[in-house]
Amino acid sequence: MKYLHTMVRVADLEKSLHFYRDLLGLRELRRVDNDKARFTLVFLAAPGDDAAQIELTYNWDPEQYGIGRAFGHLAYEVDDVYALCEKLAAAGVTINRPPRDGRMAFIRSPDNISVELLQKDAALPPREPWASMPNTGTW
Amino acid sequence: MKYLHTMVRVADLEKSLHFYRDLLGLRELRRVDNDKARFTLVFLAAPGDDAAQIELTYNWDPEQYGIGRAFGHLAYEVDDVYALCEKLAAAGVTINRPPRDGRMAFIRSPDNISVELLQKDAALPPREPWASMPNTGTW
Repeated sequence: MKYLHTMVRVADLEKSLHFYRDLLGLRELRRVDNDKARFTLVFLAAPGDDAAQIELTYNWDPEQYGIGRAFGHLAYEVDDVYALCEKLAAAGVTINRPPRDGRMAFIRSPDNISVELLQKDAALPPREPWASMPNTGTW
Repeated sequence: MKYLHTMVRVADLEKSLHFYRDLLGLRELRRVDNDKARFTLVFLAAPGDDAAQIELTYNWDPEQYGIGRAFGHLAYEVDDVYALCEKLAAAGVTINRPPRDGRMAFIRSPDNISVELLQKDAALPPREPWASMPNTGTW
């Protein structure tokens, strides 16, 4: 038995690829376009960690996707939580839970999927502007 | 960068452990009880695949958890999709999408989290009662 992927539905594929691929740094592994059923699937994974994937399902006909409370978040270990949060913030992504402790941050995808970012190995030394940045919203 | 886990909230920890551990076959790796914040976290993974985990968050004070449409499903590769579906059905779990093709099934957790089961390697030869079993509900 083996974990394969977590699937999330996305309302705007380009916005989502900008978030998961360009900003978060996941790599696109494969893509399935289905003209008849009018959907696109995009499988992504962290570089060097191809076995654990996220599957983006994009239905070509617009739908509204709410987020229930039973789904919590996706979590990724990252090499430098400050550098990634800087990149995300510069691109307009709200850092809902800033890495005040040099260890943990939470952000949300364009579809409101909560994503946890955990510093690899030990926590980094506290650093501004993160150390004194308040939370924004929920995650 | 590395995938760590997908977190889902569960309304009843015992029911959820029965589903994810006893029926689905995941193994409990670690557990965190927090008396002050009144929650329990249980991390599970497929045997031999400890790196890709699911985190169950159980808040001791009852909450209602709905499922939004933005979260899709968790997917696991399994050794024998018929044997697992038999075990699940015998335990009263609805096989929402039976493995008619010997390859793919969908079920739901006690909190309505959709779980995809994919046959390892090639599809198994079609077999009753699965081959002619209709879908039940959505997944």
